[in-house]
Amino acid sequence: MQMGMIGLGRMGGNMVRRLREGGHKIVGFDMNPDSDRDVASLEELVAALQPPRTVWVMVPSGEPTEAVITQLGNLLDAGDIVVDGGNSHYTDDTRHASELKRNGIDFLDAGVSGGVWGAERGYALMVGGEERVYRKVLPIFETLKPQGEHGLVLAGPVGGGHFAKMVHNGIEYGMMQAFGEGFATMMRSEYITDPAATMTSWCDGSVVASWLLDLFENATEHDHTLAGMPPVANESGEARWMVEAALELGVPTPATAAALWQRQTSRGGADDILRVVTALRAQFGGHVTKVDEIATH
Amino acid sequence: MQMGMIGLGRMGGNMVRRLREGGHKIVGFDMNPDSDRDVASLEELVAALQPPRTVWVMVPSGEPTEAVITQLGNLLDAGDIVVDGGNSHYTDDTRHASELKRNGIDFLDAGVSGGVWGAERGYALMVGGEERVYRKVLPIFETLKPQGEHGLVLAGPVGGGHFAKMVHNGIEYGMMQAFGEGFATMMRSEYITDPAATMTSWCDGSVVASWLLDLFENATEHDHTLAGMPPVANESGEARWMVEAALELGVPTPATAAALWQRQTSRGGADDILRVVTALRAQFGGHVTKVDEIATH
Amino acid sequence: MQMGMIGLGRMGGNMVRRLREGGHKIVGFDMNPDSDRDVASLEELVAALQPPRTVWVMVPSGEPTEAVITQLGNLLDAGDIVVDGGNSHYTDDTRHASELKRNGIDFLDAGVSGGVWGAERGYALMVGGEERVYRKVLPIFETLKPQGEHGLVLAGPVGGGHFAKMVHNGIEYGMMQAFGEGFATMMRSEYITDPAATMTSWCDGSVVASWLLDLFENATEHDHTLAGMPPVANESGEARWMVEAALELGVPTPATAAALWQRQTSRGGADDILRVVTALRAQFGGHVTKVDEIATH
Amino acid sequence: MQMGMIGLGRMGGNMVRRLREGGHKIVGFDMNPDSDRDVASLEELVAALQPPRTVWVMVPSGEPTEAVITQLGNLLDAGDIVVDGGNSHYTDDTRHASELKRNGIDFLDAGVSGGVWGAERGYALMVGGEERVYRKVLPIFETLKPQGEHGLVLAGPVGGGHFAKMVHNGIEYGMMQAFGEGFATMMRSEYITDPAATMTSWCDGSVVASWLLDLFENATEHDHTLAGMPPVANESGEARWMVEAALELGVPTPATAAALWQRQTSRGGADDILRVVTALRAQFGGHVTKVDEIATH
Repeated sequence: MQMGMIGLGRMGGNMVRRLREGGHKIVGFDMNPDSDRDVASLEELVAALQPPRTVWVMVPSGEPTEAVITQLGNLLDAGDIVVDGGNSHYTDDTRHASELKRNGIDFLDAGVSGGVWGAERGYALMVGGEERVYRKVLPIFETLKPQGEHGLVLAGPVGGGHFAKMVHNGIEYGMMQAFGEGFATMMRSEYITDPAATMTSWCDGSVVASWLLDLFENATEHDHTLAGMPPVANESGEARWMVEAALELGVPTPATAAALWQRQTSRGGADDILRVVTALRAQFGGHVTKVDEIATH
Repeated sequence: MQMGMIGLGRMGGNMVRRLREGGHKIVGFDMNPDSDRDVASLEELVAALQPPRTVWVMVPSGEPTEAVITQLGNLLDAGDIVVDGGNSHYTDDTRHASELKRNGIDFLDAGVSGGVWGAERGYALMVGGEERVYRKVLPIFETLKPQGEHGLVLAGPVGGGHFAKMVHNGIEYGMMQAFGEGFATMMRSEYITDPAATMTSWCDGSVVASWLLDLFENATEHDHTLAGMPPVANESGEARWMVEAALELGVPTPATAAALWQRQTSRGGADDILRVVTALRAQFGGHVTKVDEIATH
Repeated sequence: MQMGMIGLGRMGGNMVRRLREGGHKIVGFDMNPDSDRDVASLEELVAALQPPRTVWVMVPSGEPTEAVITQLGNLLDAGDIVVDGGNSHYTDDTRHASELKRNGIDFLDAGVSGGVWGAERGYALMVGGEERVYRKVLPIFETLKPQGEHGLVLAGPVGGGHFAKMVHNGIEYGMMQAFGEGFATMMRSEYITDPAATMTSWCDGSVVASWLLDLFENATEHDHTLAGMPPVANESGEARWMVEAALELGVPTPATAAALWQRQTSRGGADDILRVVTALRAQFGGHVTKVDEIATH
Repeated sequence: MQMGMIGLGRMGGNMVRRLREGGHKIVGFDMNPDSDRDVASLEELVAALQPPRTVWVMVPSGEPTEAVITQLGNLLDAGDIVVDGGNSHYTDDTRHASELKRNGIDFLDAGVSGGVWGAERGYALMVGGEERVYRKVLPIFETLKPQGEHGLVLAGPVGGGHFAKMVHNGIEYGMMQAFGEGFATMMRSEYITDPAATMTSWCDGSVVASWLLDLFENATEHDHTLAGMPPVANESGEARWMVEAALELGVPTPATAAALWQRQTSRGGADDILRVVTALRAQFGGHVTKVDEIATH
């Protein structure tokens, strides 16, 4: 089918290629004039599509997505469909949907997993919205999704796609933290000769066999101690959103949060906590922690 | 090759079948006279094997394993090999190895993963001990291990097999907790129609694709809300040992411990904590928590 | 000075008594006609005060506070002051302040700690707003605050009072959790004869001496094992808000969150997590957790 | 009464002064010839005391304590008493007690809290052992303890004193972490002008009023942001022991452990965890974390 794609970065660009290989007619637009875009403006993109149109928005969440969706609300007609495939917060989706609805435009939110491997492996898709609308975009979803029985779900009403993706990423944080804790423990133990080889041995037949463990094998192929990796990690927002959503729902998420906090701590987030601890110990213990000393009190 | 197997329970019995299908001559013994045992005592088992003998111990850790290894130390000869395939603590291994070494008997510890699926899928094996001894038992390991490139590793010196298995199980705890946190969050959200279907959709092409997620699909096939499962879980010791080992090594393991504590809490482990909280709030807030009330202070 | 007090519940009522004992002329109003109110409506309350008026709002956060502040915005005049002494979220404060500012009305938010003990001991106060406005209400604050050098602070701009109170309550959660963890550990240990007596011994001269520990002594005076307390606790929102605020600021708060999650778990918040754990273990271990069984896999 | 004191460091030396001011006749010994010792060897110390003797051991836990107690077992007579006032693990106590019991020597373990303030404020004491023996040393305990009703407890049988001190220190860790989390959150918030002043305001009348908060006031008197304190803290072992003991008893201790892990992390304990996280993200996200970049995937 025919569709417009807004945002031709790494994700959007790869998705366009996969869609065209699948026989779809994609009109691509990106703000960047050096991109491989087909049209030079949103107006041209809308003009190039036959109504009823479907437009997939694949730009960073926040300001860029807000701007594009506002403009599409003015340019599109009743019966057209906007799909937000970026990483918007699920509460943004319900707002976007009701704004577009005023002009009769339908909205779907699509959480997209797969990273740089998606182009080859397919993208796991979680969609939020009305089934009626979902069915219209299904040919696109079917082409983007990975081979196999799974990889595509209508997760719930508007917001459900990004809610599901948020939870997916929270789980991903927890799994990576679990692998990290195991690796770090083995790295300091005299009982384990080669922690990376031991972890990699679990790729077949063990309970923890997983795609992440396959990636670990790749990652450690030439660097068994990961000495080349910085002990610092950013957080991209979605695990934070999940912990917040779960807090409001009354669900504890200690493993997900542990993963998130480990990253925030690596960025200095706990420095002031430690300053308080050190200051108090100096008060009752009579001395300040020295970095090369094992203090007792 | 020829080997004795002590312990013909679910794990040991399945392993004997897999080994015999692989062409090995296994002499099996179990304390239980109703088991499918080949001999009626440890003495008979030792007598039935050609020196140098290899004996695999597959009995519960703690007392049963202690008793069997002590007896084997008296019955076996220099050059024989004992493999402890149970769930012993890695510090027990070093003690067992040095006790057996006095009589010239070699020792390997083997962490075995695979559960009830191992019979069909093969057992992921992590072995601790000297490479010289490992090589002698390699034909057995090769038959037990799963197909594929991985699934068997000489993890380190004596103790390394059980240390690796302990870490493996700790990671398993963390992964299950991560999936659980995601599922529980979706169960309470109005944005997700069918949490089980959403999680299952990640089996293909997502970052969290894993054997555990495949098992989740099986588990929820006829019970999408898992209403039939009790909200209670035991802990089997190995994650606890991992957290303790990591504490001594100076490595934080918050995700692993979160999983463990969630299980201990489900068994009432936090009840006295909550009693203190409730008692203190009653002191400064002037009332005791009522179960159907949202208290404020 | 003269002031109106809206909300004559346990907190508001006690505060009025303390203020009157301090020589202030308080006009009290409450929705409840059976309360000890001086006037029967907000209109009467405003009419009873000499401009420039100060009105203290001491009603539950959320809807009740919203309603009262909206009405006050219509009833009061430029130069009047509204103090929100309830438990509003700090972002509500900035909204309220800008709404009232349109009519020239000033706003302060006041976090109030002290619970049922405040009437006797005084109320620790944290105030947010402009220093110019704070100085006008200072006589009231000085009367409400506890004796001693401390107990009153202008914490920051509008929102700062409730932000500070939120953090205060988060710390309170963490401290109670810490005491609870210690008590619970001693309750299960054969090394401690009387955990309550041991904790109480720390009231003098120890590092953990604190008002909460004094309350613990009271709480356990006639019930050393706290057997009469339910192992269940509600959460009142402020620790949750603190964890969320800290997440957004990039600051890890694992101890505060642990306290919060322990309470959420006591309300069933983790049940679905445990169902997943139990379901997965049943898949790879071959059996479902039985409550009276220590399972192994 | 008469007593020998072994170990005249900061703690032991201050205790001797307090005891002598209380009228006790203390014979002091230290390995260090430059110390203010009364005798030059353990033999001389034993000779200088009238039987039945009481000897207080105040040396570092582990090797030094082991050595002293072994020697005392050989030098002392039946009916003498050894008090271990150091930071030994509670399982060491039961071993020491049974070794000394062979020669008829009684044993008490005494957890001592108070740090550098103890000399002036008194030392909170937690004692483990038989009541019969405890009563004999009571005059010493009464002099060492702080004024006030509390500050001394016979916590349980041998080991109970150090178990109680271990739990006390675990609680102390949790409380300091709670204060640290609050301070750190306020340090990053635009709503709080002076986090230290806000925290200090809670010293009177608030729920979190405590000796630690009084120390915080001292600590921040000339450094409101604690900029002079390193964001690094050691751990002294006792919180770690408490978490381990609680794990074995089935009691979750997430707040205590959070405090401990924060310190271990500040020493690099989580570095390998973060390397795994960064390596995996690089695999599926296509790039390595850069320290000055907020990455998304």
